[in-house]
Amino acid sequence: MDRRKFFKKGTLLAAGGALLGNPISGLATTMEYDLSAKGKRAKNIIFMVSDGMSTGTLALSDHFQNHILGHRSVWMSAYIDNKVTRGLMETSSASSIVTDSSAGSSSFGGGVRVPNGSLNVGANGEKYLPIWQKMKRKGKKIGVVTTVTATHATPAGFNVNNNSRYAEPQIAIDYLNLGLDVVMGGGDEFFNGDKREDKKDLYKAFAEKGYAIAKNSSELKKTGKNQPILGIFNEGALPYQLDRENTPELKANIPSLAEMAKKAIEHLNTGKEGFALQIESGKVDWAAHANDLGGLLFEQIQFDEALKVALEFAEKDGETLVIFTTDHGNANPGLIYGKNADKDFETVAKYKYTNEWILNQIDNSFSPNAVRDLVQANLGFEITSSEAHKILGYYSNIQKEEQGLYNYKHLPYEGFANMQKKHSSVGWISMDHSSDHVEVAAFGPGKELLKPFVKNTDLHYLMLQAAQIENKF
Amino acid sequence: MDRRKFFKKGTLLAAGGALLGNPISGLATTMEYDLSAKGKRAKNIIFMVSDGMSTGTLALSDHFQNHILGHRSVWMSAYIDNKVTRGLMETSSASSIVTDSSAGSSSFGGGVRVPNGSLNVGANGEKYLPIWQKMKRKGKKIGVVTTVTATHATPAGFNVNNNSRYAEPQIAIDYLNLGLDVVMGGGDEFFNGDKREDKKDLYKAFAEKGYAIAKNSSELKKTGKNQPILGIFNEGALPYQLDRENTPELKANIPSLAEMAKKAIEHLNTGKEGFALQIESGKVDWAAHANDLGGLLFEQIQFDEALKVALEFAEKDGETLVIFTTDHGNANPGLIYGKNADKDFETVAKYKYTNEWILNQIDNSFSPNAVRDLVQANLGFEITSSEAHKILGYYSNIQKEEQGLYNYKHLPYEGFANMQKKHSSVGWISMDHSSDHVEVAAFGPGKELLKPFVKNTDLHYLMLQAAQIENKF
Repeated sequence: MDRRKFFKKGTLLAAGGALLGNPISGLATTMEYDLSAKGKRAKNIIFMVSDGMSTGTLALSDHFQNHILGHRSVWMSAYIDNKVTRGLMETSSASSIVTDSSAGSSSFGGGVRVPNGSLNVGANGEKYLPIWQKMKRKGKKIGVVTTVTATHATPAGFNVNNNSRYAEPQIAIDYLNLGLDVVMGGGDEFFNGDKREDKKDLYKAFAEKGYAIAKNSSELKKTGKNQPILGIFNEGALPYQLDRENTPELKANIPSLAEMAKKAIEHLNTGKEGFALQIESGKVDWAAHANDLGGLLFEQIQFDEALKVALEFAEKDGETLVIFTTDHGNANPGLIYGKNADKDFETVAKYKYTNEWILNQIDNSFSPNAVRDLVQANLGFEITSSEAHKILGYYSNIQKEEQGLYNYKHLPYEGFANMQKKHSSVGWISMDHSSDHVEVAAFGPGKELLKPFVKNTDLHYLMLQAAQIENKF
Repeated sequence: MDRRKFFKKGTLLAAGGALLGNPISGLATTMEYDLSAKGKRAKNIIFMVSDGMSTGTLALSDHFQNHILGHRSVWMSAYIDNKVTRGLMETSSASSIVTDSSAGSSSFGGGVRVPNGSLNVGANGEKYLPIWQKMKRKGKKIGVVTTVTATHATPAGFNVNNNSRYAEPQIAIDYLNLGLDVVMGGGDEFFNGDKREDKKDLYKAFAEKGYAIAKNSSELKKTGKNQPILGIFNEGALPYQLDRENTPELKANIPSLAEMAKKAIEHLNTGKEGFALQIESGKVDWAAHANDLGGLLFEQIQFDEALKVALEFAEKDGETLVIFTTDHGNANPGLIYGKNADKDFETVAKYKYTNEWILNQIDNSFSPNAVRDLVQANLGFEITSSEAHKILGYYSNIQKEEQGLYNYKHLPYEGFANMQKKHSSVGWISMDHSSDHVEVAAFGPGKELLKPFVKNTDLHYLMLQAAQIENKF
């Protein structure tokens, strides 16, 4: 494709965006960028989302890795190596300045902002074709990999239309019908006939369509390159990385995000027309919702490890665009100034398990001392007797139960996080999403299309343009 | 200067950095960048600091301007126009991951991290020559403009060596001896002989050296281009922009940051060798320390207005590098997800005064209803009777007095901010600095030297390199 032709297509592309009521901010001037040479077109796209990653989360993970593990984060290393472009991204949805994950993913996926809670369906029922379907129609293999349920908001937003993100049983069927080449994550409850309301055995249905089915790490390892893969490794979301690392059974059976990403790329990178893969570290968001510091840091590190897999592949491949970002901030965590800030932060290195794991161990039979011992043994800090009493109060008094997104067992996340803050010096603004502008970075062919400030929807058109796909569907 | 020669100087510059134990991360590869043509060297440098600006503050200000005022922030507009480079900056000091403002400014000013509380003096007494002194020796005019005391940590860090940021009476004398060409801000207490412990009348001393002295807006307007200027407009820091706008006497007498910036540039831009000007919106930090939402937003807007002055000058001038950033995050404010998030945030448009102003009005003679009326009339939201009682408790009970940086009158900032949060949907992690990586952007000649990730100290060497000044002093 010569430059002139591409410019023409670019114009059409821009028009396509405008028709959708969504002019492509900042991209208009880039249409003349010459993508015609080999290595300038993004044959493959890997879109990575650290869900709910406030800028503070990115910094905390970088500080932790730099000060405790002795190396900078993969994300910051990519910046230091100066091989990426980066922007600040506005994450709003159609219904609010503060987006949820389904509207956030739909902005990337459908290129149009939709109301919170929706997957590529507008307020009046308008449907926007999700980008992985566009990629599929152009012959690319497509896939999703996540640490939460494979049918969760972020992977779903790249693939389906549904006015509710909670329609996960239907989304599992959609994946089957759409023919995703790789589906990996948790969510047995949505694929297992014994657990689905409609009793449909989706494993069987996927297998009949030729999919390799993997339910644990060793089964995943055995899948061949030439079969599409459905890998579902837990009932709901996968366990936190920190808990997985310190629980031999989990470590043996449940793959890490990096392991899934590697396997996904191996499989997807077998077609002539390339591939499009979405990788999500979904529990960064869950940990932020729970103000769970150990959970948060190690999920972000897990994202980093998967990012490393993607960047190393892309560097070698030369035809792969890697976009790495988040869909929105969450809880804006930060290390707070004080005489003991550094020492307090270093105590996180002693954490053996997440707050969730700790709080799941406790029940009504615990004495205050047993609670104190549990915290000391697994998080390395001392809570007071009165704090232990307070924690136990949550277990004996239904009135005090916390609600909160993803807090299925109504554990006292907030109460406990408030006690932890004195020891970690890390604070949170809330247990929910924030409206912060967030980081977005790009590596590989097409990275030049990323401007210093973008709206979340811009990334949809950026991907199409980088892949030289005309937006006519 | 031809490219080869500059490369040689660049090498020396890099060596200079290394000798200081501070290798220039990310700059090594830029030495070959050709700055020899006119318009590629930064004859002038304007370094702008929105002190204590978390990424969340930047986003809130942008959302507020976008949704309420109908235009994006100047900062984001500069990104949208795609005329800047930008990076993410690590802000740590020599003594902690979380810096204070003096160590933060010293990183820019001296190029070496020093312990918190210090101005360009290392832990063992080592002194690092501040960058405005380097610029002065190369013939440039130099200046500082701020909304806090002119001798405060951030302006001081570009100019002086002192192991304590609190030595403001001495720093005022240092400014006199160093011959700063423009000094503007607050801090009469450090210049006025009646208020200084040593009774030295620094106004007189500055005047004897030929300075025009301005103590209010009209005196500032009358200063000529050809005189150095000392403009001190308040006892301590200048009042908050929001309070200033709604208090005719303050508005008439005290210039805005943009007005000071404009005047400073007019004066400084008269020398053959160019100028170096530091502009600080210092009370963004103070408002964050007080969790004062109205204060914060309008100080950030005040920064934006001064940034506009700087960018418009630089665009026209063509030889001016504008760096705009912050020294560290503070309180990580963010708009929190919820059904009423947008509506809640919009209530900020009703604020007539800062929390500080409101809380300063209250005294023991107030009834709970009078407190409620005061809040309703000036912030537009209703507090409960019990909240009004609680507020009054702070005034009657010395035990409950809040401390906190810059909370000179021990006002109940935190108690009140907690009440306000329900109405604004904006949360804070604390009342102190955070360790977040922060935004830094550059416009004009030398902007290409800014890499995607930098340490605060890197900006020192970036300025020298952009100005083609060899680091030999």
